Order: sequence, then structure tokens, then C-alpha cells
Amino acid sequence: MVTTYYFLKNEIKKLSIKELAQVLQGKEGMLWVDLDAPLEAEEETVLVSLFDFHPLAIEDCQSGASEEGHLPKVEDFGDYLFVIFNPVENPNVGENQSSGRGVEIRTSHLSAFLSRRALVTHHYKPLRSIQYASQLLTKNPNALGRGPDFLFHIIIDDVVDNYTPLLDSLDEAVDRMEEEVFRSPGQRTMVKILSLKRNIQTIRRVAVYQREMLNRLSRGEFGLITSDEMIYYRNVYDHLVRMTDLADSYRDIVAGLLDAYLSVTSNNLNRVMKVLTIISTIFLPLSVITGFFGMNFQHIPGLNWEFGPLFATLFMIFVAVGMLWVFKRNKWL
Amino acid sequence: MVTTYYFLKNEIKKLSIKELAQVLQGKEGMLWVDLDAPLEAEEETVLVSLFDFHPLAIEDCQSGASEEGHLPKVEDFGDYLFVIFNPVENPNVGENQSSGRGVEIRTSHLSAFLSRRALVTHHYKPLRSIQYASQLLTKNPNALGRGPDFLFHIIIDDVVDNYTPLLDSLDEAVDRMEEEVFRSPGQRTMVKILSLKRNIQTIRRVAVYQREMLNRLSRGEFGLITSDEMIYYRNVYDHLVRMTDLADSYRDIVAGLLDAYLSVTSNNLNRVMKVLTIISTIFLPLSVITGFFGMNFQHIPGLNWEFGPLFATLFMIFVAVGMLWVFKRNKWL
Amino acid sequence: MVTTYYFLKNEIKKLSIKELAQVLQGKEGMLWVDLDAPLEAEEETVLVSLFDFHPLAIEDCQSGASEEGHLPKVEDFGDYLFVIFNPVENPNVGENQSSGRGVEIRTSHLSAFLSRRALVTHHYKPLRSIQYASQLLTKNPNALGRGPDFLFHIIIDDVVDNYTPLLDSLDEAVDRMEEEVFRSPGQRTMVKILSLKRNIQTIRRVAVYQREMLNRLSRGEFGLITSDEMIYYRNVYDHLVRMTDLADSYRDIVAGLLDAYLSVTSNNLNRVMKVLTIISTIFLPLSVITGFFGMNFQHIPGLNWEFGPLFATLFMIFVAVGMLWVFKRNKWL
Amino acid sequence: MVTTYYFLKNEIKKLSIKELAQVLQGKEGMLWVDLDAPLEAEEETVLVSLFDFHPLAIEDCQSGASEEGHLPKVEDFGDYLFVIFNPVENPNVGENQSSGRGVEIRTSHLSAFLSRRALVTHHYKPLRSIQYASQLLTKNPNALGRGPDFLFHIIIDDVVDNYTPLLDSLDEAVDRMEEEVFRSPGQRTMVKILSLKRNIQTIRRVAVYQREMLNRLSRGEFGLITSDEMIYYRNVYDHLVRMTDLADSYRDIVAGLLDAYLSVTSNNLNRVMKVLTIISTIFLPLSVITGFFGMNFQHIPGLNWEFGPLFATLFMIFVAVGMLWVFKRNKWL
Amino acid sequence: MVTTYYFLKNEIKKLSIKELAQVLQGKEGMLWVDLDAPLEAEEETVLVSLFDFHPLAIEDCQSGASEEGHLPKVEDFGDYLFVIFNPVENPNVGENQSSGRGVEIRTSHLSAFLSRRALVTHHYKPLRSIQYASQLLTKNPNALGRGPDFLFHIIIDDVVDNYTPLLDSLDEAVDRMEEEVFRSPGQRTMVKILSLKRNIQTIRRVAVYQREMLNRLSRGEFGLITSDEMIYYRNVYDHLVRMTDLADSYRDIVAGLLDAYLSVTSNNLNRVMKVLTIISTIFLPLSVITGFFGMNFQHIPGLNWEFGPLFATLFMIFVAVGMLWVFKRNKWL
Repeated sequence: MVTTYYFLKNEIKKLSIKELAQVLQGKEGMLWVDLDAPLEAEEETVLVSLFDFHPLAIEDCQSGASEEGHLPKVEDFGDYLFVIFNPVENPNVGENQSSGRGVEIRTSHLSAFLSRRALVTHHYKPLRSIQYASQLLTKNPNALGRGPDFLFHIIIDDVVDNYTPLLDSLDEAVDRMEEEVFRSPGQRTMVKILSLKRNIQTIRRVAVYQREMLNRLSRGEFGLITSDEMIYYRNVYDHLVRMTDLADSYRDIVAGLLDAYLSVTSNNLNRVMKVLTIISTIFLPLSVITGFFGMNFQHIPGLNWEFGPLFATLFMIFVAVGMLWVFKRNKWL
Repeated sequence: MVTTYYFLKNEIKKLSIKELAQVLQGKEGMLWVDLDAPLEAEEETVLVSLFDFHPLAIEDCQSGASEEGHLPKVEDFGDYLFVIFNPVENPNVGENQSSGRGVEIRTSHLSAFLSRRALVTHHYKPLRSIQYASQLLTKNPNALGRGPDFLFHIIIDDVVDNYTPLLDSLDEAVDRMEEEVFRSPGQRTMVKILSLKRNIQTIRRVAVYQREMLNRLSRGEFGLITSDEMIYYRNVYDHLVRMTDLADSYRDIVAGLLDAYLSVTSNNLNRVMKVLTIISTIFLPLSVITGFFGMNFQHIPGLNWEFGPLFATLFMIFVAVGMLWVFKRNKWL
Repeated sequence: MVTTYYFLKNEIKKLSIKELAQVLQGKEGMLWVDLDAPLEAEEETVLVSLFDFHPLAIEDCQSGASEEGHLPKVEDFGDYLFVIFNPVENPNVGENQSSGRGVEIRTSHLSAFLSRRALVTHHYKPLRSIQYASQLLTKNPNALGRGPDFLFHIIIDDVVDNYTPLLDSLDEAVDRMEEEVFRSPGQRTMVKILSLKRNIQTIRRVAVYQREMLNRLSRGEFGLITSDEMIYYRNVYDHLVRMTDLADSYRDIVAGLLDAYLSVTSNNLNRVMKVLTIISTIFLPLSVITGFFGMNFQHIPGLNWEFGPLFATLFMIFVAVGMLWVFKRNKWL
Repeated sequence: MVTTYYFLKNEIKKLSIKELAQVLQGKEGMLWVDLDAPLEAEEETVLVSLFDFHPLAIEDCQSGASEEGHLPKVEDFGDYLFVIFNPVENPNVGENQSSGRGVEIRTSHLSAFLSRRALVTHHYKPLRSIQYASQLLTKNPNALGRGPDFLFHIIIDDVVDNYTPLLDSLDEAVDRMEEEVFRSPGQRTMVKILSLKRNIQTIRRVAVYQREMLNRLSRGEFGLITSDEMIYYRNVYDHLVRMTDLADSYRDIVAGLLDAYLSVTSNNLNRVMKVLTIISTIFLPLSVITGFFGMNFQHIPGLNWEFGPLFATLFMIFVAVGMLWVFKRNKWL
Repeated sequence: MVTTYYFLKNEIKKLSIKELAQVLQGKEGMLWVDLDAPLEAEEETVLVSLFDFHPLAIEDCQSGASEEGHLPKVEDFGDYLFVIFNPVENPNVGENQSSGRGVEIRTSHLSAFLSRRALVTHHYKPLRSIQYASQLLTKNPNALGRGPDFLFHIIIDDVVDNYTPLLDSLDEAVDRMEEEVFRSPGQRTMVKILSLKRNIQTIRRVAVYQREMLNRLSRGEFGLITSDEMIYYRNVYDHLVRMTDLADSYRDIVAGLLDAYLSVTSNNLNRVMKVLTIISTIFLPLSVITGFFGMNFQHIPGLNWEFGPLFATLFMIFVAVGMLWVFKRNKWL
């Protein structure tokens, strides 16, 4: 589906593809063309026939259809910039963390062509940030009027804002994991920690690539972004710096949790070993004592003595208590 | 609350907001405007109406109200610099370390706008460094007279000085932890080490960001800081280099403590295993000996012998002592 | 075997070596000379006599005959570029992973000389990418007509595309390994993880060297690659960035698997220890009880009592059940 | 104590502070002023009144009085360079390593102001390098005659030379530790390794900071060091490169020792477990055999047989030997 | 011993020191002066009197006499370059790896002064690369005729080629170690792995320093190396890149072996624990059963029954087999 927004004289009009072709002949007004899950024919018409973008850029757009997609990047084609962004699809990924191996964070794919007059966005899956920008335009047409670079900044700012709930849920997941490691570490704890670690790595990687991209966008490296707008891109950059910083600190914490988990496991082993030692220490000697009086010698002293069994029992209790006392003193209990 | 200090002809005057507006029309004198936990209306009046700062910078100011705040940064808006600093709130964090999971270091938020004539500071929580600067002004009006950049250096120098007790308490906490690991490692030792490690990481991160910021401020990258003052900023930079260096060495030590803790745990396991081995080695054979003479064969030699039991007992003692001797020789005891 | 493709006026002709010598005298047309497992005499004729390449570059070509070959590199000799690329030989390496120590990834060797008019490729083993380019030429002669740099880009793009099945099979191998570690870790699991890790390192290293090379090729550092073609080289560069990124994430996962494997092993030890403890805890005391009544004292109470054995048995069951209950309550079971 | 050396016409004269003031008015001769544990009044006179150094630099000088001191640095004040160096105090630190937790390396503090005509050194503790330079001057007055930068190079070269015995003793300590880990690892081995590691980190850090400083001094960054002298500074730089390289290799070795120690501990555990297993394997079955013939059944075969006990004994020996044989074959012994 | 080769008009002549002095007055011909284990007097004559090299460079030469020597470096003295190289002494170090703690790689010391007309090499130990170059000169005088920089490249190329057998033997040592870790890990395996790791680190360090040096030599940083020769230096650089790459991969493998060794050790512990558990599980209950019938109660049922012992035996076998079956089902065997 192709939606075209046309800004002229403080008004936003939606254009058909035919009208778009006409407008492109002219030199007036600002354009935003959004290709939402476009058919191949639509891609052909808009990207190739109307805008004549570079085949390699279009190929990169279409790589968004595959599961892996394309890493974030920005490329300067002279007349236009080509940008790939990775929005997140499932921001509540941390929520389901507790059940089994957890959900893996998946990133979506947003391609954009940014020229003096037009912004062309291309995505196969519906994106909230696009919706948000489209709603904003109806309220404030000037968001497009200030130029496609300003509108584009609004979209990616929203994309980055959408990472926030994801980070929050990771934060909670980290806290829950900490609780679990120290309170009730189980068989699946390790699996969960590794899954959490992987999600943090994913989010970190996405953030780092996009941070570097925005660093370039906000540094004035590309002429298409006016210096007035650069400060806005710097703002998005700051958000991504914050994100990578958070991801780094989560990563450190999770690395610590891994150590802690192994330590807790090892402590458990120690406790079990201590119980085992105590039992052996107490009952093996007692066993020998009973064995002693169970020998079939005819002359074992005291066998006929009336208080023999009592004495033997008391002796055994004495041995057991004595050993426990030694253990206590050595702090092995 | 808005407090305005106005320096003119070697004197400091406090201005009302109205007077401030007038002074801003003129070209004389130096200004320091401090917004301490300002109302939204005050922010509107001072930051927007009077000084006309960039909306994004004001937004960053206001992000200090959230718990996470904003990472330290410096941004050049041409007429003014916008700086965010992270003072620490609870410098005695190491003190409470010993009780449970320890206190987490929290950082506060100080925003500042620095122009030729004016320094505007903005913070939601009362800060000792601001208080200190304000007291200094009453004694030495020239601290503002030398320019807002000089006054600003005084404030951030004090902010950085306030990290010192924090680092001292971390130092003590590291020492205490070392004591604990090698003297009496317990169930909670691991938790404490991880908590300490996290605090060190936090302080390190804050110091690194601010160090980089001060490196830029002291390098002459920004025209607003005169080259005479740059040496003062270099001084603050040196303090932060020292801080990160200390944090690095603490981090190394804590990493070593983690290794040491696991090693101590493992040694404990070894000791317990040795005790277990010794007991088994001594009492299992004795048990077999008593069992031998407890068999109901009619022709076991010596059953009727008067000194049989004595002999058996001596034999058992001989076996036990012999085994202990073997152990001693092999250094297993 | 030397195959020579000559593009002139939209046509591709295959040339003999004699014809090649003539064409090289002239100034028209584009050339692609492919040396597939060439004899030494052929190398001598083409590389030395006809093209007069630098002896060191020819030596590097020939190092491809050894098992280790040469790392990817690009060198500017003024009139021509000399490039070494490492295609992979066995892209289905991950498949056989499950059997024993796995197959090691082996890289092949493709050398190329790239000048204004000619591309000379040199390899000792048949390469699919060369075949692919040769077939393309029959269909689309212009692929050579656009210049040797365009044709060369097609070849290395295909080389890099051939890494994809390799990465896919590594991906599957990582998944299978994850399954194995958490479901049925065995004696050989560690060996397999290390072998997988090594393959990932190999692929990562190859990708990183080639990425750096393509970065230089696509940055316009070498005059021989026209700025129109640079964007195509950038495209290959992007693929390699994606590859190293994937390899990095696989490496992280495998590092996690190593930790997980050790943790699973350690958990198994814990479980075995618990069983051992329970057995000792239950049967050692019972053994002492039977021993008690097996002592040969004449006055042990209850020996003549009719329900003595029953009572003793019940007492033993009571002790056993009580101990199990204590264990249950302490969550040691 | 202030000592002033004045070089004029190939002669060295010691000056009083008064004479120094006069000489500073003139333009002839070279000066070296050494402040050895100066009184505050002396610092005031020399650093402030006579030379008028920057207050921040003087403050940094005085920070040498605190235990932590200041990290090495160099700062250009236009007319003079301000340099802080960290000599080591106790170069034989490795020696005492073997006793307990070892001695921590402590660094001292040497500040220097270097101008065209004068070198001012400042330290609170007596330094051998200063003594050495002072003795050299009596023998070879020209060492000052070649300029303060030449004399300063002599001092810091000697400071760096004084690290050598420290590194040698660390080398020996590493060797001794290796011996200990593999021959007789004890309870305190871990503590010693960690202490050694910390000392290596300390020395490495000091070397790295000073190396970077000397890199800047020898690169011609500062106009005050003539290009003829730069080669001498380069020489000191080379020594520090060698030092960090050694420290790096020691660090690697100590990291290996930590691994080795844990491995040795784990091997010990294994050996103890094997002994335990063997004992249980042999004596538990024997215990059951004796128990079998100790049962009070009236019809156990062979109880009345004359060779019953002999047979039972032989059977028990057979079982024991058989088990040992199985163990031997499985290489568990 | 001083050997001087003098190239004039396509001929090589050996000169005495006297002749050398004369030739140095003139401006014709190329020179190679080799100081092989020179006496101090010879060093004095050649390096100081004849060539007048910088005292610091000569000092660095002489540091080759000490065991530690000097790290590789290159220094530009304007008229000449001073270069230190580290050839390896014992390239078959990997061979002896299997016996005990292995041989440590030792590096030798080759200093060289390279000027427009002359190459002066200086070494205390005989070097194969020097021999090789000297033999080459008799066959091909032009090797010196092309300039001292060409001859020097031949020497260091041979030095680097001499690392190859060393790397091959490390490769074999790594393979052997892998075999040992997985087949028959023993007490000394850990020591051997650490020794191997250390050798790899040494070789890596030497290669890295020399790689950086050759990078500078081949980049045209030094005017004394003509741009025609730079490509040859680039070739040596490539070899060193390959070397560090190999060393890196060996290091990764050895790190993996360390993990593997610990894992194998831990698996052994697990296996021993399982055997122990099985024995206890089977024989402790049997012991209780025999104990039951060994109690001296008069009314234990079945004591007088003819098939009592048989029944008891069968019951014991039943219990043992049942437990083994449970173990089998739980995959603990």
C-alpha cells in the first residue's frame, strides 16, 4: 500500500500515484511517500519509475523481507540519502522471560530515502512510528513543511523511544533473575541467564550500529540534513548513547549473575558434602563399636555384665556428641 | 526557586526576576541564575522567555526529574554551552556495604547553560556544590567577576571533590571485603562482592563520561571558555583521571576477590573431602575386621583364645594408626 | 588452463594466448584472463611475459598452492591492483559437525590483478564464482564491457554470497549444540563446542580481513576503481559487515554454551552427590541399629520379646522416613 | 631544604636564596633549584615569589604530601613545563613476597618545573635520583651547562633505571610463585598470587602513564625540549616501553598461575576422591560378605566346615584384588 | 670480528678496516659492514670513529649482550636509520615441548644502521640470516649494488622466514597437546599448556613489534628507503601479519585447550563420583539386610527355615539389580 502526503501552503493532501507523478515534475511542496507492505508492482512504480533510486539501495530495501534483514546503515547517493533502521517488534520481550527459554528480541526493518523534497519510507510490517508520524501530520502539517529531514527525525526519534519499554522490561528481567539466582536457583536458571544475556547483546548491537549512524547524521557529514536539524539528530543520538550505556551495565550485571550462579551451585555442593561428612563421621565409628561387641569371641569383657548394653549405648552417644562438638569448634557445621 | 546573582563593579547583588529581565537588556555585568527545584512556570519564564534556550536543551534539563536522568554531556549551541553533570547523592555508600546487598550509588543531575555573560544552573535536588559556590560569592564577589566560566569551574570542581569521600568509602569497602573473603567467607559474601563491583562500575562510568567532557572543555574546543580558564578545567580533568584510575584498580582488586572467593570455597570443599576420606579409610576396614570375627563359622581361629579380643583390638589400632601414617606421609592431612 | 575473454563492440570472444598477446599491443577492448590451475609455463607466459606483473605479487599468487595460502590483501602497484581473496571450499561444514570433532573450514585462494583494461584471475582450485562469472558473460557480455572492475565486483560478490550457506550451517550447528548441551551433554560435547568455536573464529577472521580490504576498495582509495563502481564494492562490504556481525553473535552464543556446559556438568555432580548423601543418611544409621541388636551382650533388652524384630524393623522405617522428611523440608531432594 | 646549583662559565656554584633572586634578574647561566622536603615558607619564597609558577601547579606539587599523590603528567604553561613523575620507593618489594600478603609497591612523588634557564625540582622524600644528579654535577658541571632539559633527562632516566631492581624482584617472585603453585600449593598461595598480581598492575600503571608522558616529551610536542635532547627522552621512553612489555608478560604469567592453582586444587580433589572410591569399593563389599556369614540363619552352608573361615577370607581377598584389577585396567588408580 | 663488503662496478671486495676508512672518505660504491661478536675496540673503531653513530644507538646495540636485550624498534637519526630486530635462536622449540616444562623461546639481537651508502649490522651471536646474505653476495653482487636498503630487506626477510619452522613446531605442539588433553590428560598437562601458551605469547609479541616496525618502514615514513624498495618491505610486513594471525589463532586454540582440560578433569571427577554412588547404593542396603538377620533376636522369622539363607541371598540380589536398573533408567551409569 502506497500512501503519499503532500505539503503545500500549510496544507497536507493525500495524493494518488498519478498525482504523485505530476507533483514530482514540479518543484513545489514537500513529499512523504510511505510504502507499507508494498506489492512488487508498487515498489517498481514508486522506487524505480518515479524516483529512480539506485538498484542496490532497492535491493537492500527488499532484504527487509527476509528474516535477518539488514543491519542499520546510511549511504549517501548524492541526491538522496539511503537509511536503514531496525525498529523492535516485540518490546515486551522481558515479560515472558520467566517462562522457559524466553522470547528472542526480533528487529524489524525500516528503509528510507531522504532527498531535498521528499522522504520515501519502505517497510513490510506495520510500524507504530509510521502511524505516529502520519497522525502527527494531520494535527501539525508543518512537521512535513519544515522539510523531509525534520519529518524523518520525528520517525526515528519515535523508533528509538519505542526501545524504552524494551529496556525497562530487560531491567525487570535482570532484577527477577537476580532474585532467582540468590533465592531459588534451579535447573533452568542457567538457560534463562544465557537467554537474557543474548537479548541484551542483541539490543546492544542494534543500538551501537544506530548510534554510529546517528553520530554521522548529526555531525553534518551529509549535506542533505540542514544544520538546524542536526541538533535534533544529535538528540536521537543522545538517546542511543544512553541505551548502549544501559545495555552495557545490564551486560555487566548478567555476567556477574553467571558467576553468582556458579558460586551458589558450588556452595550447595559444599553444604551437601558437609552433611555427608557429618553422617559418616558419626555413624561409621558407631558401626565399628557395635561390630566390636558383635564379635564372637568368648572372652570379650562385659558381655555378661548387666549394664553392658547401657554402657555401650552411653559410650556410643559420648562418641557421637564428642564428634559433633569437634565439628562445631572447627566451624564445619 | 530562582536565585539570581548579579556582579557589577566588584559587588554582588541578588536580583528579582523582573530586575533580571532588565539587566539582560543591558550589556554590563556578570550573571548567575540558579534554578533550585524550579516550578514549571519558573522554568518557562527563565529558560524560555528570558534566555530563549533551545527546546531540546530544556527537555534534557527536565529529564533530570526522572530517576535515570541523563548522562553527562556538553553541547555547543553557538551563543551558549549546555552542560549536564552528574553529582553523587550518597557519598557514604560504602559504609552501609556490610549490611546485606549494600546501597546502590545514585547520581543526581545538574544542568548548566554557560554564555559570555551568564551562567544558568538548573537542578531538582539541593546540591552542596551550588551552596558552596553561593557562599563563596558572598566572601569573594570576584569569583563571578572573572566570568561565568570561572564560576562554573568552581562548581564542577566541588562536584568532583565530592566524589572523594565516595571513593574513600569504596576503598574501605574493598578492604573489608578482602578481610571477609579470606577470614570468614559466608553465604552472602558473593552477593556483597557483586554489589561492590556494581558500585565501582557505576562510579567508573560516571567518571569516564565526565572525564571525556572535561577533556573537551579543557582542550579549547569551545570558544566560550577562555584560554586562561582552560587550565582550571584541566585541573578538574586531572582529578577525574585520578578517579577513573582508582576505579580501575578497585575493579581489578574486586575481580581478584571473586577469584579468591571461589578458590576459598573450593579449598573448603577439599578440606571436607579429606576429613571424609580419612574417616572412611580408618573405619571401613575396622568394620570389616569386627565383621570377620562376627561371622558364625565354628572354626574361626582364636575365638576361644583368652587374649583374642585384646589381640583384635590391638590389630584394629595398628591398622588405624598405619593408615594415618600413610596419609601423613602423603601429605593428605 | 588459461581462458581469455575479450570484449569488443558488445561481443565476447575467447582468445588464444597468441591472440591475447596481439590484443595487448592494441588499446581497444576489455580483457578477462582466468588462470585455472595453471602450469608453471602458463604462469610464466601470462603473468611475467605478457603482463609483466611484479615478481612479489606473482610469488604471492603462487603461495596459494601451499595449504596455508595467504591472507586477504590488496596492494596498489600503480598500473594495477593486486588482490587476494579467500573463498571457502566446503560451505556445508556445519552439517558434519555432529559427527566427531567436526570438519574444519578450509579457505581457498583467489588472486586477481586489476588494471584499466584487464582483469587477470589466478587460482589453483576450480571456483564456483569464476564459473558463475564466465556463464554470466555468455548471457550478458556487457558485464565485462562495463570494465574489469565491474566484472571483478561480480566475482567477489559471488564469493561472499557463497559464505552464506556456510553461515547458515554454522547457525544450525549452534542450535544443535545448544540442544545437546541442555538435553544430553556427553563426553564429546566439549570437543564439539571447541571445534565449532574454532570454525567460527576462522570464518570471522576471513570476513574481517576481507571487510577491511573492501572498505579500502569502496572508499575510493584506489584510482583504478571508478566512483560509479565504488557503490557496488560498498555493497559487498555491507555483506561482510553482516557476516562479521553474525560471526560475533555466534561467538558470544558459543562462549555462553561453554559456560552452560560446565554448569550442566557441575549440576550433574550436585545431583549425584545428593543421591549419595541420601543413601548414606538413611542406611548408615540403620546399619548401626542392626549392629546394636547384633551385639553379643546377654542383657540387651527385648531380645527375647516376641515382637522385638517387628519393633526394630518399625524403628528402622521410622528413622528412614524421618530422615527423608527432614531432607524434603530442607529442599535437598 | 632548598639547594640551588648555578652554572656559569663551566663552573657550578651553590647559591643562597638571596643570590638566586639576583641571578634570576639577570639573563646568564643555567639554574637547578631542588626543594627537598621544603617548609611551606620555602615553597612560598621559591615557587611563588621568585619563579611565580601557576597556583594549580603548586597545588599539584603539594599533593605529593598526601599518601596517594598525583598521577604522572606533563603540562605546558608556555614559559615552563610542569611535570610530575612517580619514582618507586621500595624497589626490593618482591623479596619479602614470600612472607604473608607481601609488601605493596608504593610510589613517591617528584614534581619538576622546566624552563629555558632553570629546572626546579620538588619532592617531600629524599630521592636517590636527585642525589645522583647532584653528585654528577660536581664531576661534570656541563650536565647543567647543556641546559635544564638535559639535566632533567638525567634525573628521570635514573628514576626509570631504579625501576629495574623492582622488575627483577618481581621476576624472581613470579618464578618462586610458579615453583610454589606446582610443588606445594597451600592455603596462602592464592593470597600471594593476588598480591603479586596487584603489584604488577601497579608497576604497569605507573609505567604506562610515564610512557605516554615521555612519548609526548620525545615527540617534539613541547618547544622547551630542544630537538637535540629529544633523542635522550626517546631513550627513556624506550626503557618504559620495555618495562610495560615486561609487566604485560608477568601479568600473563600470573594469570596463568591463577588458572594453574585452581587446576592443581581440583586435581588434588580428584586424587582424594579416587582414594575414597577405592576404599569404598573394596571394603563395602567385604563388609557385606562378613555380614552374610554373620547372619543368624541356622542353615547357612559351610558354617560348620573346617575350612569355612579360610575360604571366606580367600574369597574376600579375591574380591578385593579383582576390584583393584578392574580399577587398574580403567586407569582409575 | 668485522667483515666489510664493498660493492664497486659490479664487484664485491672485502675490505680491511683501514681500507674502509679510505672508502668512507670517497663517495663511490656501497658498503656492508658486519660486526659479528665484535670486541669493544672494534665497536669503538667502527661505530664511533669511522661512522660516528649516536652514543644512545650504540648503547642500544650493546644492550644485545644482556639476556633480555632490546625490543624491536626503528629510529630515524636523519643521516641513517637505526633498527633493532629480534631473530629467534632455537626454532625447534616446539619439538622438546613434550618433555617436562618445555623450552622457552629465546630471541636474539640484531642491530643495524642503514644509511644511503652503507649498512652496518651488529650482533653478538652468529646469525644464519647474516651468513645467508653474505653467501648471496658472492653469487649476486648486485644485491648490495641495489643499495643497502635492498640488502637489509634480504636479511630481515630471511630473519622472518626463520620464524616459520618455529611456528610449524608450535603448530605440531598445539596438535600434540590437543591429543594429550582429550586422550590422556595427566598431572603435567596443565604445566605444558601454560608453557606452550607462554611461548605463543612470546612469539606473538616479537611478531607484533616487528610488524609495526615494518609497517612504518614500508609506508614511506623514512626517506632512506626508496619507494622501489618499499614494496619489498611490504612483503616482509605481510609475512609478519600472517605470523601474528597464526599466533592469534594458536592462542585461541590453547585458551580452548585450557577450558577443555578443566572440563575433562571435572568429567573425571563426575565419573569417579558415579562409581562411588553406585557402590554405596548397592552395598549399604545389602549391609543393612545382612545386619538385620545378624541381630540376636530370638524371634526373627525364617532363621530356622531351611531356605532362609537362599531367600536372603536372592532378596539381596533382587535389591542390587533393582537399584542398578533404576540407575540405568536415570542415565546415571
